[in-house]
Amino acid sequence: MTIQKKDLGASVLATEYAVRGPIVARAQELEKQGREIIYCNIGNPQSLGQRPITWLRQILALCEYPALMDLAPGAFPADVVEAARAILEGSQHGMGAYSESKGLRFIREAVADFIRERDGISVDPEAISLTDGASKGVQTILKLLLASPADGIMIPIPQYPLYSATITLYEGRIVPYYLDEADHWKLNRSMLDDSLRAACAQGTRVKAICVINPGNPTGAVLDEQNIAMVLDFAREHGLSVLADEVYQEDIYLPGDTFVSFARVLDAKRMRDVSLFSFHSCSKGFLGECGVRGGYFEYRNVPDDVAEQILKLLSVCLCSNLPGQVATYAMVHPPKSGDPSYELYNREKTSILEEMKTRAVLLAEGLNKIDGISCNPIAGAMYAFPRITLPAGVTDEEYCMALLEETGICVVPGSGFGQAAGTAHFRTTILPPTQKLRQVVEMLGAFHEGYVLVKH
Amino acid sequence: MTIQKKDLGASVLATEYAVRGPIVARAQELEKQGREIIYCNIGNPQSLGQRPITWLRQILALCEYPALMDLAPGAFPADVVEAARAILEGSQHGMGAYSESKGLRFIREAVADFIRERDGISVDPEAISLTDGASKGVQTILKLLLASPADGIMIPIPQYPLYSATITLYEGRIVPYYLDEADHWKLNRSMLDDSLRAACAQGTRVKAICVINPGNPTGAVLDEQNIAMVLDFAREHGLSVLADEVYQEDIYLPGDTFVSFARVLDAKRMRDVSLFSFHSCSKGFLGECGVRGGYFEYRNVPDDVAEQILKLLSVCLCSNLPGQVATYAMVHPPKSGDPSYELYNREKTSILEEMKTRAVLLAEGLNKIDGISCNPIAGAMYAFPRITLPAGVTDEEYCMALLEETGICVVPGSGFGQAAGTAHFRTTILPPTQKLRQVVEMLGAFHEGYVLVKH
Repeated sequence: MTIQKKDLGASVLATEYAVRGPIVARAQELEKQGREIIYCNIGNPQSLGQRPITWLRQILALCEYPALMDLAPGAFPADVVEAARAILEGSQHGMGAYSESKGLRFIREAVADFIRERDGISVDPEAISLTDGASKGVQTILKLLLASPADGIMIPIPQYPLYSATITLYEGRIVPYYLDEADHWKLNRSMLDDSLRAACAQGTRVKAICVINPGNPTGAVLDEQNIAMVLDFAREHGLSVLADEVYQEDIYLPGDTFVSFARVLDAKRMRDVSLFSFHSCSKGFLGECGVRGGYFEYRNVPDDVAEQILKLLSVCLCSNLPGQVATYAMVHPPKSGDPSYELYNREKTSILEEMKTRAVLLAEGLNKIDGISCNPIAGAMYAFPRITLPAGVTDEEYCMALLEETGICVVPGSGFGQAAGTAHFRTTILPPTQKLRQVVEMLGAFHEGYVLVKH
Repeated sequence: MTIQKKDLGASVLATEYAVRGPIVARAQELEKQGREIIYCNIGNPQSLGQRPITWLRQILALCEYPALMDLAPGAFPADVVEAARAILEGSQHGMGAYSESKGLRFIREAVADFIRERDGISVDPEAISLTDGASKGVQTILKLLLASPADGIMIPIPQYPLYSATITLYEGRIVPYYLDEADHWKLNRSMLDDSLRAACAQGTRVKAICVINPGNPTGAVLDEQNIAMVLDFAREHGLSVLADEVYQEDIYLPGDTFVSFARVLDAKRMRDVSLFSFHSCSKGFLGECGVRGGYFEYRNVPDDVAEQILKLLSVCLCSNLPGQVATYAMVHPPKSGDPSYELYNREKTSILEEMKTRAVLLAEGLNKIDGISCNPIAGAMYAFPRITLPAGVTDEEYCMALLEETGICVVPGSGFGQAAGTAHFRTTILPPTQKLRQVVEMLGAFHEGYVLVKH
């Protein structure tokens, strides 16, 4: 055949994406054979029974088929109809036309209002681009930054493998900085310095630092000081900052709040550090993974670079319009007193309360297992527990054995990166609470048996 | 600022995408100032008043908000309800979950049925991937093929600039082959041979040939012999084939039919040439550009390469679910006798008849203008007329002047490529018929005046 694996590029072959790797493939195989599989490998809430938020789905349905306003007038609350009308009018051509490359201006304005209200800062809708999920935005900015094979991007270890995969694919260098497992997976300055020093010693030209807050897979939530420290570090070394803030709604510990990089940048009046912030409809309490909606916002980016970003986006014309509309529904929720408010609030609260319960249940449960230890799950949707393994056993082998024996599908720590000599896995907190209890029990029994047998 | 244009990669800076370039930017500026602009720059039918197909929108609305089945039972024909139910059941988790990386199996099976029925050949649903429009599929396969800076891809001149932009972005070499303007923009073997010979002389390792059929921007429709010739050429030189077939529904001349590359490959029992075929919801009579739905199918691709394709798709998880559902609606239309059939057929026929009328009107009108000549528009949505310009005038200048004087927005031929010493522009056939008549008249008056003044 005219296409052969041996002719493919080294960067394509080297790319890895563990969240959908061989263990998941094996899980699907087992499922086809009739085994019950508990998918804890991926942050895909609705695949585990989470219900969609009615507000968002009603708006989408009306935008797709506006005749429903007349055909089924009783089926939609007045504020839903109003939102759909506003979107259709703002779009000029409805859902069937390509929008501007960076997305409908009307929806970018709504995103700007949302950020303005969240952070109390000024926002330019022209600095916002709507994207197919956060992933496509991250890929666009990484492509922009990686100019030569010696260019590197600092990414946390452990990280979400979108970053390592994309940097590899675009032939840049991964510059790992370690998160401090002993201090709740927080960032610390000396670990950033170490990372940069090591990269420079190898001739790497470090262009940017990525931060995931709340953390995936770590569950850590950064405070203002931590963020300020990263921004100071970036300024000192001339780095741009990528802030992956897709889990901003998922904060579980009392006293914690989400602090955005944009807000701290503004508070520090930093005009020199270029910041790219990412958000998504797939996470939070919406969990609308299928619609592939999201956006990025940039700050301190020169106009001639902004033009290049726009050009990159324009090659694929625009992000999908349903995703753009879902983003509108995310940033423009019903307000207290609106007809949809009560249902919206009930759905939102129930999902977030459930997540909070499970975050505590899972971390506590894991810590009761001898040989497993887990930081508190302060945010996001995951636990990344450390496991003590018998000598010579890899975390891939462990996770595969766990799958074969229990049907629980998790991702080995190696897929996210981990300090040498340590082993972890990532599990989501998404199975329904009762099922998650069962997961913890099965994990405990499995771990004990596995360690015994392998010793 | 930490990001500067001077630090960006040469490939990013060199990328061009004329369909949304400076002339369109100027048009948007003029529009903001209150000028009426006739957008003929982009194949975006619903932005010019084309109505969506009800069948597709009803299915999308029901899938987004299935409660409508009970809330508004009278609003949806039985076959729409049945289709939506089948999709929701086939998806297992509805529209809110990530699907498999290559898209929902249930929808891939429907695509396989569609190809099987269209071409009378056997089809493997596992060889089909659902993508965000055809563009993302094309980019994935180009990334796969371009392994080193010496790798080249043959693309037609004129071409759709997705190809040149993506090859530049991924640091491959564009290997142009010229379409024969004197023979209705058909391909011919000697022009392919010339192109390959020139590339080899420059040390380029040619990996594949792209063909756009029906042609964008040329409007040409290839017949079976033409396609067989390309496949023979590919086999002789060990090339893979990318067949961009997004305009397969847009065929206007009596006697012409769409012939797919897959069908000819199968008829020739070719087992060695790797073929990638692309389709989209954005074109045809659907014109659903906003939903970003599409698919590609491959043939004669080894399993270990298929694994790499799947891995590349998995990095961004999956294409958007509304786009997947729109693809289902495209490949699974109502059948004669079904409740939705009559309306569907009426909408479809009326759009295609309109397009046919405009294709004739536009080509004839352009040919009546002294100094403009245009091949018959046999397919797709565009004319690519040749224009005689005064010495020293570029087609960019011409198009900009046309915009300033008339408000007509077209794209200069240089954005698509053209033989040295010739000048063209691309215009769509999408403005409503009455408006298109006006476009032709204004073009005639403008051209005459422009040539006089510049001489």
